[in-house]
Amino acid sequence: MNFYTFTEHNLRHFTENVFLKMGCPPADAQLAADVLLRSDLRGIDSHGVARLSGYVRLWKKERINATPDIKIVHETATTATVDGDRGLGLVVAPFAMKIAIEKARTYGSGWVAVKNSNHFGIAGYHALMAVAEDMVGISMTNASPLVAPTYSSERLLGTNPMCYAFPAGKYPPVVVDMATAAAANGKLEIAQRANLPIPEGWAQDASGNASTNPHQLKEGGSLLPLGSDKDHGSHKGYGLSATVDILSAVLSGANYGPWVPPFVSFLEPPNDPVGEGIGHFFGAMRIDGFRPAQDFKDHLDNWIARFKSAKTIDPGKQVIIPGEPEYNYEAERKKNGIPLIDAVVNDLNELARKLAIAQLS
Amino acid sequence: MNFYTFTEHNLRHFTENVFLKMGCPPADAQLAADVLLRSDLRGIDSHGVARLSGYVRLWKKERINATPDIKIVHETATTATVDGDRGLGLVVAPFAMKIAIEKARTYGSGWVAVKNSNHFGIAGYHALMAVAEDMVGISMTNASPLVAPTYSSERLLGTNPMCYAFPAGKYPPVVVDMATAAAANGKLEIAQRANLPIPEGWAQDASGNASTNPHQLKEGGSLLPLGSDKDHGSHKGYGLSATVDILSAVLSGANYGPWVPPFVSFLEPPNDPVGEGIGHFFGAMRIDGFRPAQDFKDHLDNWIARFKSAKTIDPGKQVIIPGEPEYNYEAERKKNGIPLIDAVVNDLNELARKLAIAQLS
Repeated sequence: MNFYTFTEHNLRHFTENVFLKMGCPPADAQLAADVLLRSDLRGIDSHGVARLSGYVRLWKKERINATPDIKIVHETATTATVDGDRGLGLVVAPFAMKIAIEKARTYGSGWVAVKNSNHFGIAGYHALMAVAEDMVGISMTNASPLVAPTYSSERLLGTNPMCYAFPAGKYPPVVVDMATAAAANGKLEIAQRANLPIPEGWAQDASGNASTNPHQLKEGGSLLPLGSDKDHGSHKGYGLSATVDILSAVLSGANYGPWVPPFVSFLEPPNDPVGEGIGHFFGAMRIDGFRPAQDFKDHLDNWIARFKSAKTIDPGKQVIIPGEPEYNYEAERKKNGIPLIDAVVNDLNELARKLAIAQLS
Repeated sequence: MNFYTFTEHNLRHFTENVFLKMGCPPADAQLAADVLLRSDLRGIDSHGVARLSGYVRLWKKERINATPDIKIVHETATTATVDGDRGLGLVVAPFAMKIAIEKARTYGSGWVAVKNSNHFGIAGYHALMAVAEDMVGISMTNASPLVAPTYSSERLLGTNPMCYAFPAGKYPPVVVDMATAAAANGKLEIAQRANLPIPEGWAQDASGNASTNPHQLKEGGSLLPLGSDKDHGSHKGYGLSATVDILSAVLSGANYGPWVPPFVSFLEPPNDPVGEGIGHFFGAMRIDGFRPAQDFKDHLDNWIARFKSAKTIDPGKQVIIPGEPEYNYEAERKKNGIPLIDAVVNDLNELARKLAIAQLS
C-alpha cells in the first residue's frame, strides 16, 4: 500500500470538477467539494474523496439529483422540515444547517429535520458551521442498515452518527463526532483489505454468533451497537442509534430502519419505501441564549485544561479532547498536503477518464 | 434478601410526609414524591425511594434547600438558564422542563440549562413531561465523578445520563434513558452486596488496570465509559458523557467534571468550585413543528412493530423497544404494588423514627 500526497488546492480543484461534470451548479460543486475535502483534511479518510466515485455512481443511477430544488416543506419559528429533492447530502445538509443557524440567531435555537437526501459526509462539518457563530452545533444522520439491535440477528440500523460541537476560547472546539456502532465500517474495511481478524465485539455472523471474521458483513452478518453486548451496554448503543433514526427520519418523513436506501449503487433501495431518501437532523443553539459566550468559553477552556492534565494510565498517553486529533490533522495537512492510498488515486483517475476531466496532479 | 410489597398510594403518602418534614411546601413535596415513585413504578429501584434518606441527609447538611427560590436568570425566546437555588433536583427539574415546554408551545422548541441543583431522579420522568404534550422530550444531568475518560486513571465524569423520549401511537412512548457509563453504579452495588465479581469492562483499579473486583470504586478505581475500552469505542462513551457535562454545566454555570459535588453527604464538595451545584439540561420540540403529529406517531408505530418482529438470535428473546420494559413495570406495579428489599424498608423506617412520622405500611 503506497501513499501519494496531494495539495489541498489540487485535490479540491479535481473534486469540484467532478461535481461540475455531474451537472451541479458551480456553488454546489464548490460546497460539496469543501465538505469532502474537510473530511480528508481532518484525517477522516473514509468519508472524503475516497467516496467521490460512489456519489457519481449513485448520480448515474439517478438516485442523486445534481440540480435539486431543496426547500422547506413545514416550519415554525424554530423548527423546519426540509425536502432535499434527492440532492447530494453534501449540499442539502449545509442548506438545512444554515436554516437552523438563522432561526437560532433570531429565536435562540433552530432545529431542522431533512428528508429525501443522501450521504452528507462527516457530521462534524455541519455542526462546526454553528460553532463558527458561537453556537452549539448538533448534526446527525441515519444510514443504510448494517447494525443489529441487541438480541437481533437482522441488520436494522445504520452506523447512525451523532455530533455535538462546542466553541472553546483558546483551545480548538470540542467536537464529539461518533458513529453509534462499536466500530465504524471503515475500520472493518481496513481489516478486510489486510485480511486480519477483528476484535470480538465489533460484529456478529448471520446467526448472531460473535465473530472475528472481517468479511462477516458480506455474508449476512451485522455490526454491533456501541457497547457490543448486553452486559456492556449494547442496548445503549442501540438506543442512541434509534434516537438518530427517529430524529432524522421518522420526524422528517425519510426512510428509517431497514428501509434506508443503501449508499452503494449496486444494491437497490427497498421496493416498499416508508419515506423519501435518507434523513438528517440538525440543531443550533446560541451560547449567549444561556450565558455570555465568553464565560462559556472560559469555562470550557478550564474543562479542557483539566482533562488534558489528567493522570493517565500510560504516562505516554494524554487524555484526548474530542475533536483535538482532527484539528491537529487539519493544521498538518493544510501545510503538508493530503495523503491518499494508491487504490483511491487509481479509482479517482479512472473516474477522471470516464468523465473526461484532467487526472489528479 | 427479602422483599416487602407496598401499594403505590402508601409509599407515596410516606414519601410526601418525609419531604413535608424537610420543610418542603406541599406542592413541592407532592412533586418530589411523584418523581421518586415514578422511578420505583418503572422498575428503576436504584433511583426511587431507596434514595430518600440520602436526600434528607444532604438537606441536614444544608446542601439541599427545602424552600428554594427557583428562577430564570437568563433567557431568549427559546432558551433559558435556571438557578435552582440549591433546591431538590426532583423539584427544580420539572420546573425547568415546564419552561422548555412553554417555549416549545409558542416557538416550536424550548431549551433550558440548570445550575445550582441537586440529583433530579430519573431522566425519563422529565423527558416524558414533553411527550405528554406531543413533543420530543430531552433531559440530561451531570453527576459526581465516578467515570475515567479513555486513557485516564482519574475519575473526571459522572455516569451522566441522557434521555430522549418520543410519543408513539398505539404503542407506549419510545424512551431512551441511559447512563453514558458501560454499567450503572447501581449494578456495581448489587455485585458489592453479593460480593460477586463484575464483568471485565465495567471498572478499572486506581492505576487503570482492568478489574473484576466490585469494591474497586471504594479503593480509588473508576467506572468505565460506555464502550469499555478504546478498541470498543470507550472514547465515544467518554464523548457522550462530556457532551452531557458541557450542556448541563458549562452552559448553565454549574460545576463540571471533577468539581461536581458528591450526592453522598459523607463526602464534602470540592473547596474550589467552578460553578454552583450540579447541572441539568432539558429540551422540548413540538412534533408538529416538523410534520403532523399523527403522521409521526403512525410511522413510529411502524418502526416499533418492525423492530419487535425482528429475527432474533435466541428465539426466546424479542428485540426490546427502549422504554418498553419500564412501561410494563409501571402497569404491573400500579396494580400489584412496589416491592422493596428489607434493607430499604429498614432504612425508611429508621428515617421515619428520626423524623417522627408514621412507619411504612
